[in-house]
Amino acid sequence: MQTRGAYRTPDGLPHVDRARLESTLLTLGEIGRNPETGGINRTAFSVADLEARRWFISKLEAAGLTIRIDPIANIIGTLPGTDPGKPSLVIGSHLDSVPEGGRFDGALGLMIALELVHAISDLDISLRHPLEIVSFSDEEGGLVGSRGWIGMLNDDDLNRQYGGRTLRQVLREMDLDPDDIDRARRAEGEIAAYLEVHIEQGRVLEREGLQIGVVEGIVALDEYEITVTGVANHAGTTRMADRRDPMAAAARMITGVREEVLRLGGNLVGTVGRLETEPGAPNVIPSVVRFTIDIRDPSHLVLWRALSNLHEHFDTIAREEDVEVAWRTLAQIPPAPADQTVMQALLDAAGRYGYRHKVMPSGAGHDAQSVAAIAPMGMIFAPSVGGLSHTPAEFTRIEDTVASADVLLQALLLLDERLP
Amino acid sequence: MQTRGAYRTPDGLPHVDRARLESTLLTLGEIGRNPETGGINRTAFSVADLEARRWFISKLEAAGLTIRIDPIANIIGTLPGTDPGKPSLVIGSHLDSVPEGGRFDGALGLMIALELVHAISDLDISLRHPLEIVSFSDEEGGLVGSRGWIGMLNDDDLNRQYGGRTLRQVLREMDLDPDDIDRARRAEGEIAAYLEVHIEQGRVLEREGLQIGVVEGIVALDEYEITVTGVANHAGTTRMADRRDPMAAAARMITGVREEVLRLGGNLVGTVGRLETEPGAPNVIPSVVRFTIDIRDPSHLVLWRALSNLHEHFDTIAREEDVEVAWRTLAQIPPAPADQTVMQALLDAAGRYGYRHKVMPSGAGHDAQSVAAIAPMGMIFAPSVGGLSHTPAEFTRIEDTVASADVLLQALLLLDERLP
Repeated sequence: MQTRGAYRTPDGLPHVDRARLESTLLTLGEIGRNPETGGINRTAFSVADLEARRWFISKLEAAGLTIRIDPIANIIGTLPGTDPGKPSLVIGSHLDSVPEGGRFDGALGLMIALELVHAISDLDISLRHPLEIVSFSDEEGGLVGSRGWIGMLNDDDLNRQYGGRTLRQVLREMDLDPDDIDRARRAEGEIAAYLEVHIEQGRVLEREGLQIGVVEGIVALDEYEITVTGVANHAGTTRMADRRDPMAAAARMITGVREEVLRLGGNLVGTVGRLETEPGAPNVIPSVVRFTIDIRDPSHLVLWRALSNLHEHFDTIAREEDVEVAWRTLAQIPPAPADQTVMQALLDAAGRYGYRHKVMPSGAGHDAQSVAAIAPMGMIFAPSVGGLSHTPAEFTRIEDTVASADVLLQALLLLDERLP
Repeated sequence: MQTRGAYRTPDGLPHVDRARLESTLLTLGEIGRNPETGGINRTAFSVADLEARRWFISKLEAAGLTIRIDPIANIIGTLPGTDPGKPSLVIGSHLDSVPEGGRFDGALGLMIALELVHAISDLDISLRHPLEIVSFSDEEGGLVGSRGWIGMLNDDDLNRQYGGRTLRQVLREMDLDPDDIDRARRAEGEIAAYLEVHIEQGRVLEREGLQIGVVEGIVALDEYEITVTGVANHAGTTRMADRRDPMAAAARMITGVREEVLRLGGNLVGTVGRLETEPGAPNVIPSVVRFTIDIRDPSHLVLWRALSNLHEHFDTIAREEDVEVAWRTLAQIPPAPADQTVMQALLDAAGRYGYRHKVMPSGAGHDAQSVAAIAPMGMIFAPSVGGLSHTPAEFTRIEDTVASADVLLQALLLLDERLP
């Protein structure tokens, strides 16, 4: 590897080493790669994920960090600060992927974090605060590692299956005590600021020709399963007027979801991702139709307005169609706003380099969302080509990756100065 | 069993024996009955179906009929006619049921046929034409036995699975030669008329307070699978304007199916019975939505008008939603009109008894539909309480069953006179 190390331009701005960053990203991208599809298969605690963890630990150690594995198997590498007793500046992301995922989701954030440690060393920078690099366990399965930091894990999580083993068993195999996960919690005040870079997984930055998205917050997310119950009947002998058809009702409801979302506008998004019919035969009017609604907005208020309107609208349709409608909550995740000081440091950093950027919400969930409950949080997005993610076609350009790394480095230095 | 046998009222009209008819229906209803649910489990060639076949053969033999099993395992019991060389009058239906079906679907038609044989004997009636009582194999699986009569079986049928065995194996186990099924064909001219009584499986008769439905024909039935292809994407990070969402498109199409069917009106019915999404996760905009359309009308012309309008409408929606739409044919069954002479005999018979009746189409398929291709066909419906069928709750009142039996008996006598 031909690298020149991090450097400062004459204006004093620090720049990361593009070749080194690209190289570590490529190396990690070989672990768990399906040679036929190019897809990354590094689901949490799989053989490939464990290999990636060992590799990442060795890289952090080589960069001079002290490693500890916390009770929920998060990898934490620490560089001490110069001022004793200060809370940590933390940079986190994740190594695990979805099945047949891409090379950038999660990986980008940690490879940038690693590059920052090298850059700090190259540039002889001393931070007043301790710096922690964190690889969170099982982000894709539901922010498991970062929820461990905020005391949000329960027995359901410990009984979750990972390739036939429970999380309990997985932790034991790693010499961790599953009954000890409460000790993964981080106290408020222990973390001065949490930073994360992630791929955007959307097309906003690409379409607007931008390099950096400064996240103002992670959206509130609600997921429901709607069950519409009618009466199963013969598709040939039941006149249209005699039907109590939950599919006809569900079709109107689904159209209603989009209409309501578009009517309220802004950043609100609503999705029907799954629909099932019972009994599910072409020649039988269904008795039951079940579909999901995923609805997100930076503001809880907007979400609640949309949901209350949809609730009323579905009730009207159910009355008109003579069917029953029931809502079941699958998930309700509150919004996680970014911290103003951290956001300002990221905006200042982006501005100093002249990187084209904008403030935007994150429509996807990230570990930052958990950490926001106990520490000031800030995030930036790197553009996703075509908005694609969770697919082998996932791609973020190296120049955009470098821009994100530069901004994170500069923001880290600003926060080290600005934060107590 | 206390029975008085069939009798004639002073006006000369023959009447079947209600107690005997009720008793045979109850006896057959015990074969394959799930004691917990009351559901009938007599799927074709199951142990229970084979037991019902043996029982029915013994009943036909006891009534004086000569039994033969044709190459597709249809049971045919024959009573010779007085005039030599005449074509047969045939009464048919089926013993097999859907899983957890009811006591009347199929069974009612054969128990009435059996009662007619007894009544003819009780009343010392001699028919000029031979009388055949036919129990068709596997009606519920797709009119298998009656399609054998019209040469419509193929290798797919012979490879069809019955509890882990192919039809080929099943036939061999019954000492039949599967390579011989072509010999199940009945020649045109062999059958003077075909008659069938079936439960309505709808609510038209019940709602109008009628006892008899005289079927004018079995509807044309088309079944399609519609595949709507968009682009899978993240439910949180993909703005509404950036979506190519096949679920949103499918919802509009499904609403369109009902609107078009109601617009054309009459007897037209359209059903979306099955819908599936891919990948089917609540937080992913689907890439593909597949749904079925089942559409039926007595007139091919109406069906084609509806389908061509829907085709155009779906294309418009696909253009507007920027998705692809493709149609795949699952089934196309032409309409089977009843024969005018046979229908008239059934109407005359119903009129003579003063049973409240109406002419109506059959929205469901029946063995009569196959036989219509080679012989004059007529059918009557007995009312289904609540329009229910294919469920343990399926029920037809004994007084309505008796009315159907009387009408069939009288129509049989009329046709024996009227037909050459």
